Amino acid sequence: MKAVGFKTSLPINETTSFIEFETEIPQPLGRELLIRIEAVSVNPIDYKIRQNSAKETVLATPKIIGWDAAGIVEAIGSEVTLFGVGDKVYYAGDLNKQGSNAAYQVINERIVGKKPVSLSMEEAAVMPLTGVTAWEILFDRIRIHPEKDKGKTLLIIGGAGGVGSIAIQLAKELAGLTVIATASRPETIAWCEEQGADVVVNHKDLVNEVRNAGFEYVDFIVDFASTNLYWDSMVELIKPQGHIASITGSNEPVQLNLLKTKSVSFSWELMYTRSMFETDDMIEQHHILNKMSELFDAGVLKSTLNKTLVGLTADNFKEAHRLLESGKTIGKIAIKY
Amino acid sequence: MKAVGFKTSLPINETTSFIEFETEIPQPLGRELLIRIEAVSVNPIDYKIRQNSAKETVLATPKIIGWDAAGIVEAIGSEVTLFGVGDKVYYAGDLNKQGSNAAYQVINERIVGKKPVSLSMEEAAVMPLTGVTAWEILFDRIRIHPEKDKGKTLLIIGGAGGVGSIAIQLAKELAGLTVIATASRPETIAWCEEQGADVVVNHKDLVNEVRNAGFEYVDFIVDFASTNLYWDSMVELIKPQGHIASITGSNEPVQLNLLKTKSVSFSWELMYTRSMFETDDMIEQHHILNKMSELFDAGVLKSTLNKTLVGLTADNFKEAHRLLESGKTIGKIAIKY
Repeated sequence: MKAVGFKTSLPINETTSFIEFETEIPQPLGRELLIRIEAVSVNPIDYKIRQNSAKETVLATPKIIGWDAAGIVEAIGSEVTLFGVGDKVYYAGDLNKQGSNAAYQVINERIVGKKPVSLSMEEAAVMPLTGVTAWEILFDRIRIHPEKDKGKTLLIIGGAGGVGSIAIQLAKELAGLTVIATASRPETIAWCEEQGADVVVNHKDLVNEVRNAGFEYVDFIVDFASTNLYWDSMVELIKPQGHIASITGSNEPVQLNLLKTKSVSFSWELMYTRSMFETDDMIEQHHILNKMSELFDAGVLKSTLNKTLVGLTADNFKEAHRLLESGKTIGKIAIKY
Repeated sequence: MKAVGFKTSLPINETTSFIEFETEIPQPLGRELLIRIEAVSVNPIDYKIRQNSAKETVLATPKIIGWDAAGIVEAIGSEVTLFGVGDKVYYAGDLNKQGSNAAYQVINERIVGKKPVSLSMEEAAVMPLTGVTAWEILFDRIRIHPEKDKGKTLLIIGGAGGVGSIAIQLAKELAGLTVIATASRPETIAWCEEQGADVVVNHKDLVNEVRNAGFEYVDFIVDFASTNLYWDSMVELIKPQGHIASITGSNEPVQLNLLKTKSVSFSWELMYTRSMFETDDMIEQHHILNKMSELFDAGVLKSTLNKTLVGLTADNFKEAHRLLESGKTIGKIAIKY
């Protein structure tokens, strides 16, 4: 099968930062599905792994990354119960396994969902990683309760990115929260409003921006930009007994103590935790993707696809990574095979 | 009225570390109750405030601390609706207000509960601060669900102290958790077992102790000893998607990032947050104390009283603080007036 990968970590503008090559089609075992991939997406985790996983080394066989895809079940392992051959599916995948930047991929059925019927393959392919991340951070980490928490306030730092965009939709449509999103350019502000944000504020001078918008404190904060950079602002803005959650990681140690007087909670969200540790509730990602599928088909949620490149080529992955590394992407980028 | 307080922060063995004095009986306003106090308890927050609130200064009038009491409603403010004169009550109080080391105290009715009928004044007086803290950390911060989380594992670091003791009881009796508590001396180990701990382990070499007891990971950890000291052990022992909570505060910045791969949550609990910020749900402490009252009277919970001193005297507060500062107290100390 055709695949795109890399043998060494290189800046994206280098000729061989991505290369095309041929490799064997993998075989599905146990609960695995073999998927013929029709479209994929890219996420920041992709370029972080490309930049760091083969530093000062040259791999014998190229590494295939990419963890966001839509396609068709081509074959199934002997223990598969949730899907059959020919089913259209979408999924984010498992960091410990081969990625989706290839014509085929095997994937455990417990982290695969039914593709939304109303979305094209590329519209569906951009949703699993960001959708599951946003769902888990709101409903599994912060544990926002759709009825009890209705009307509470959520600040989303980084509203126009992939996770931010679908988080705005989920928070508005499923939880009935008042959503304050950060964005700073006219086109990102407009995008956040399109996703349903009630208020859009600039991330610079965040505390005053939020206060000037009429909110002294917010009940919940999700950070998709930088835990270290926004720590003091989050400490200031979070309501007593509030909950902060982030996907970014913190390079520097954190003054956790600053949250104590307010009895605040903090959660990390990593959508790979369930698959990486094969947790007992790993199948929850199957359920989340199916629930989101129904919500797309009911018109409650909409795909955050904003740019499509066509062809499983090294050039397209270079272009997609280059755009993502600029930090200015709005919504999501798809590569349709 | 008679009161015990201090004008300057002194080591507990100094003659004037606590002094007796006379002051006016306060008047209840609005939703306040005037309580004739019959018994109080001491908690670590007491000596922390005694040691630090009047350093290198001498106050004009002595400061009255103490936030754990049981007594009788003597008079009520004009807006009181929950209690009447003559009611027997118990409460922890409000850090921003005068404490309970006095014959009388005014207290907002929203943080006062009905005293358990089956407990003596001193048995009741030792329960509010630790009971509300343990209740909030388990059910409001970690949000342990009595049905859904039944059978999950909880590690309590510091099982024999005031909060640890009642936390063991609540986790066993209300949530049906498997409770692993830390203790290191024969008498503290026995005490933890009496409270209902399933397993008692030594806090030294904590990771191996817990693993040797048959638990690779635990679902929840509550820390009543030291966030900084046990951080690495907690990082190691917490289950993916687990929840850690603490009441201790962290003097040093924390390597929060170590919890990211497992998507772990961390919460601070401070039982004064609700009264300090006068949160919308401040009355929740009234409900918690009433629910605990019913559980005491039903024989589900038992008072953690372990030592009683008699008399509202400076000497008794010196003795109680001295014992508490040793860090070796088991359960709770009461001072009966």
